[in-house]
Amino acid sequence: MSAEQRILELGISLPAGSAPAGNYVSAIQSGNLLFTSGRAPLAIAGKAARGKLGREYSSQEGYDLARSACIDLLAVLKHQLGSLDKVARFVELHGAINATAEFEEHAEVLDGASDLLVDIFGPAGVHVRSVIGVSSLRKGVPLTIRATVEVVAD
Amino acid sequence: MSAEQRILELGISLPAGSAPAGNYVSAIQSGNLLFTSGRAPLAIAGKAARGKLGREYSSQEGYDLARSACIDLLAVLKHQLGSLDKVARFVELHGAINATAEFEEHAEVLDGASDLLVDIFGPAGVHVRSVIGVSSLRKGVPLTIRATVEVVAD
Amino acid sequence: MSAEQRILELGISLPAGSAPAGNYVSAIQSGNLLFTSGRAPLAIAGKAARGKLGREYSSQEGYDLARSACIDLLAVLKHQLGSLDKVARFVELHGAINATAEFEEHAEVLDGASDLLVDIFGPAGVHVRSVIGVSSLRKGVPLTIRATVEVVAD
Repeated sequence: MSAEQRILELGISLPAGSAPAGNYVSAIQSGNLLFTSGRAPLAIAGKAARGKLGREYSSQEGYDLARSACIDLLAVLKHQLGSLDKVARFVELHGAINATAEFEEHAEVLDGASDLLVDIFGPAGVHVRSVIGVSSLRKGVPLTIRATVEVVAD
Repeated sequence: MSAEQRILELGISLPAGSAPAGNYVSAIQSGNLLFTSGRAPLAIAGKAARGKLGREYSSQEGYDLARSACIDLLAVLKHQLGSLDKVARFVELHGAINATAEFEEHAEVLDGASDLLVDIFGPAGVHVRSVIGVSSLRKGVPLTIRATVEVVAD
Repeated sequence: MSAEQRILELGISLPAGSAPAGNYVSAIQSGNLLFTSGRAPLAIAGKAARGKLGREYSSQEGYDLARSACIDLLAVLKHQLGSLDKVARFVELHGAINATAEFEEHAEVLDGASDLLVDIFGPAGVHVRSVIGVSSLRKGVPLTIRATVEVVAD
């Protein structure tokens, strides 16, 4: 099944892709690698998520927030490439979790993004990743993710 | 206008490039991508900036500090490539802001670097980026930035 | 001397490579670049290191922890490539140090990894790098490192 078919089957509708927060763009391709900017969880009813893991959000909520940020990431890829089927494979996924100093479940949170990628892209969605716990993020968002993907050659 | 012409016009003189803080180098090219180490704001009168955004520094001061670190980044690129006109385009810019846990204006701060890149390189200066708020940085510097750029083929 | 010979001479035995903490893999090659996931210090007698630099660990201990994480990184490379002699050169090394807000010796800590790479690979082990101080990491580990390396063409 193609990524586009699987995302339809999951009932996920991709948003327009949130606007960059500063003087930059959401994605750039160099050679056959596509690099993305950091993505935050999607706003719900116009309201962006704010707060820290381990304080305002539990790890399970964090999982859902990572999944939500991943949907924004997919929206960026679709906007850039025209179709998710142009993704040859994922390479890197990096997550920054806005968390308390005692928080330890970064891996469980980021799996919210990783699980979605593997569900949609299969083996091509498997990636290397890093995750860190940061003390603050722009506008107080609870996490950001960014990715490097390999694009199908024309 | 070329990047070298524009930087002259702006009256920016590039420093020699600060020495690495440990056992590493400032830039490495692999294929046509050039990767840089993290750069901090330039020392003023031999004194490096120290402190956190949201405590010792305001966001406006942070903007200037990001611009200053970007000048050090440009010095590294010039030293490595011989001329800034060898930069085909910017790809990635990553910023780490040494900030309080309440700080939220990371995007506004990093624009100090992004605005300078776009001013000097035009469309070739546009980049994807990520920015995080970290709880500490080496020697207490207020921020570091690093970049990946595409180099003009010989 | 080859990297494999040097590592024997140093008496370093590479572990099997720790399992990923979530739904991801330890290394992916794209073109001639190999990207790795974040690696933590090796467990000692089944016990993983936990704690923050500047509180539970001194900078000298941090140096040893960074060296230990680097051995896990080398284990990943060996597992992926079959031999460390397939590494053409190191490109990037990124470190995240779980530290107090007052910690400033990030560069000294990360040198524990950088020194080992240069010792084993010589000029091919030299790299660009970045290091940040983060407020938390998965399972409370004191640091993680990740790398990008260029692989010998077949």
